[in-house]
Amino acid sequence: MPTFPFEIPDLSVFSSAGGAEEGVAFADAMFSLFILFLAAKIGEEVFRRINQPGVIGELLGGFIVGPFALGLADVNVTAEVFAELGVVILLFTVGLEVRLDDLLKVGPMAIAVGTIGFILPIIAGLGIGLAIGEDVLPAALIGLALAATSIGITSRVLAEMGVLDRAFSRVILGAAIVDDILALLAIGILSGLAEGDLGPETLVTLVAGVAFVGIGLALAPLGRRLPRKLFVWPKFADTPVVPVFILMFAGALLAQFVGLAAIIGSFVVGLFVAETPVREEVEHGFRSLLGIFAPFFFAVTGANIDMSALLQPNLLVIVLVLAVMGVVTKLVGGIVGSWRLGKWNSIVVGLGMSPRGEVGIVVSALGLSLGLIGQDIYAVLLAAVILTTLVAPFTLQWGIPKAPRGERHGGEEAGAAV
Amino acid sequence: MPTFPFEIPDLSVFSSAGGAEEGVAFADAMFSLFILFLAAKIGEEVFRRINQPGVIGELLGGFIVGPFALGLADVNVTAEVFAELGVVILLFTVGLEVRLDDLLKVGPMAIAVGTIGFILPIIAGLGIGLAIGEDVLPAALIGLALAATSIGITSRVLAEMGVLDRAFSRVILGAAIVDDILALLAIGILSGLAEGDLGPETLVTLVAGVAFVGIGLALAPLGRRLPRKLFVWPKFADTPVVPVFILMFAGALLAQFVGLAAIIGSFVVGLFVAETPVREEVEHGFRSLLGIFAPFFFAVTGANIDMSALLQPNLLVIVLVLAVMGVVTKLVGGIVGSWRLGKWNSIVVGLGMSPRGEVGIVVSALGLSLGLIGQDIYAVLLAAVILTTLVAPFTLQWGIPKAPRGERHGGEEAGAAV
Repeated sequence: MPTFPFEIPDLSVFSSAGGAEEGVAFADAMFSLFILFLAAKIGEEVFRRINQPGVIGELLGGFIVGPFALGLADVNVTAEVFAELGVVILLFTVGLEVRLDDLLKVGPMAIAVGTIGFILPIIAGLGIGLAIGEDVLPAALIGLALAATSIGITSRVLAEMGVLDRAFSRVILGAAIVDDILALLAIGILSGLAEGDLGPETLVTLVAGVAFVGIGLALAPLGRRLPRKLFVWPKFADTPVVPVFILMFAGALLAQFVGLAAIIGSFVVGLFVAETPVREEVEHGFRSLLGIFAPFFFAVTGANIDMSALLQPNLLVIVLVLAVMGVVTKLVGGIVGSWRLGKWNSIVVGLGMSPRGEVGIVVSALGLSLGLIGQDIYAVLLAAVILTTLVAPFTLQWGIPKAPRGERHGGEEAGAAV
Repeated sequence: MPTFPFEIPDLSVFSSAGGAEEGVAFADAMFSLFILFLAAKIGEEVFRRINQPGVIGELLGGFIVGPFALGLADVNVTAEVFAELGVVILLFTVGLEVRLDDLLKVGPMAIAVGTIGFILPIIAGLGIGLAIGEDVLPAALIGLALAATSIGITSRVLAEMGVLDRAFSRVILGAAIVDDILALLAIGILSGLAEGDLGPETLVTLVAGVAFVGIGLALAPLGRRLPRKLFVWPKFADTPVVPVFILMFAGALLAQFVGLAAIIGSFVVGLFVAETPVREEVEHGFRSLLGIFAPFFFAVTGANIDMSALLQPNLLVIVLVLAVMGVVTKLVGGIVGSWRLGKWNSIVVGLGMSPRGEVGIVVSALGLSLGLIGQDIYAVLLAAVILTTLVAPFTLQWGIPKAPRGERHGGEEAGAAV
């Protein structure tokens, strides 16, 4: 029998009984996915039965089975990928629901909300940072971590309440784009300052980010002229779902590549597809994808919450101050930036902008890796970021019913008049 | 500023820019998934345009971007999980297409095909093993690795050709269940023999496996009495898709837990759901899930092919002999076991049974870990297993058009007469 040296293919995909390390990792990953999904759905069920936001139930379900509580589910790379695809698909479907023209009409308002709501948290964070004895750069980083909105949770609540067509929803979505571009710039400047070289790459990154969103928005109207045939020309495509899935995935990766959040990419692709004749087919086909993937985002977010930060009194104070400042500054940004929508509509905009997420966590991780902050501030920032996220479904559910539809003098239709 | 020791939550799900190790693994996993999916679809497109089976294009696409060729995509645990969910969903949807009564009607025939087609490869493998100088136990293991059919590829080809309703398809599906139960028993006996203790666990495992399939089949008719309401009672469920997804996932994990292939579990759940009033809704809702997940199974299978085994003349001979014996023995099993279907219909059954997959690879890995075989035989077995899989789409596409529909004396309807 000859012996030979060639590599043994890694076939652990099949290792239902294989005892190899990869086989175990695989079985763990499958089991964790199942547990996270089940916990999210049970959590949602319980919360909806007591008339609370389903998304909080999903977060809590994830937390309960996650590593910081029962430890039944492991948040491994696979769970993270499902979570990311979940929020990417969520923002894509939100993009599908938005008419581009409507979004552009609220453009100036979105820029105002996004910019004010970005600068105020930085000032507040800088102040708090200096007050607890940090240097200017670390203090600025604390502010930056609280500056950028994550619209995953807000989108879900808006969709659940059936208000994606309202002006405040469009302002929130537009402002989140503005916000993400500003964060891209700010992260570039801050890491340049921290490393002592504010090179031309910062500018290149910013230009790439703006160009990505700009080209996406500019291309979207072209979608109107595309025939359905274009989406189903491949023989593998009976429906446009698979080609559009590829497009969405590519958009998300491309956004990430230029330094933006992946969800901005899928949102822009969603805006584009919304203008094409296949919108309804895609909306329909993506319903089950959304139903299967999105719960992973909320369950994993919940599973990552380390509540122990909230159990230590001295830290809890800092966390609470940061979280409250985070909510208040966004609220001011919303009210000032979109006052023309009327009092309650602009309050809803502010509430919708308050959840922080990926960018805040990325900034915190960056600060840690640059040595600007220590493990303590890192954990405090994460807890504050998560807190701003947890309160949003409740505040939105409280605020939205108060916001009048189509109110005269700064009502719903004001967006069109801006 | 207080310092504190609590654990930093693993939030790398958000690390679009995070430089941590997990962040890299995450970005790699996302990128690999995209590349595998894209390659599968391009491969399918090319093959369908030249009138060849699309599934071979998907396999080849995966191979080309995989670690044994261009190396663009990494077959990590995440890709494996997507692949497994892909084949689990595939067999679930196949189960949805099958009427339980039709399956039970071909029961005796399926048992004959499954049993003959299981015993013959073991005898052949044993002979070849002894001929190349192995001991009895390793030689038996070689046979066992070639004994169990994997119907992932066959199912896809049958679905693609629109012949899932024909008698030969039902015989293949039934025989694959029989086959998998026999493999469960044989693996238990063989590892007992190799470890010198053939304990009662072997029996327990077998009973659990038979009980799982038996209870599943027995429960299926009850599905007819279930109201649709039962599937949409949760508030989170507008459609039955999410509850049924949970059921399917649970079935797959349960099957794996009792020692069967996960796909047997999802197939049985599919049979059950097929009997309920929600069948069409579920079929419809699962279409996009199938479209997104299934390509990963074929791309990952392709990416795992180490063609170098086929480049070494002396090994190639053994690989080819094993593969040819593998195909021939299943063909004999099909013809003898289902001769009543008529010549070509029974040939199609044999051809459909020829692809080996997960079980063959699990048996090989088991042999390696028990020290029964070395790395060389392990690689040869994997190559032979993969070869039996690669030829099936071609032979099926060649054989199926020749098989008469509803032929007198042993034609299509013979299944009902058995």
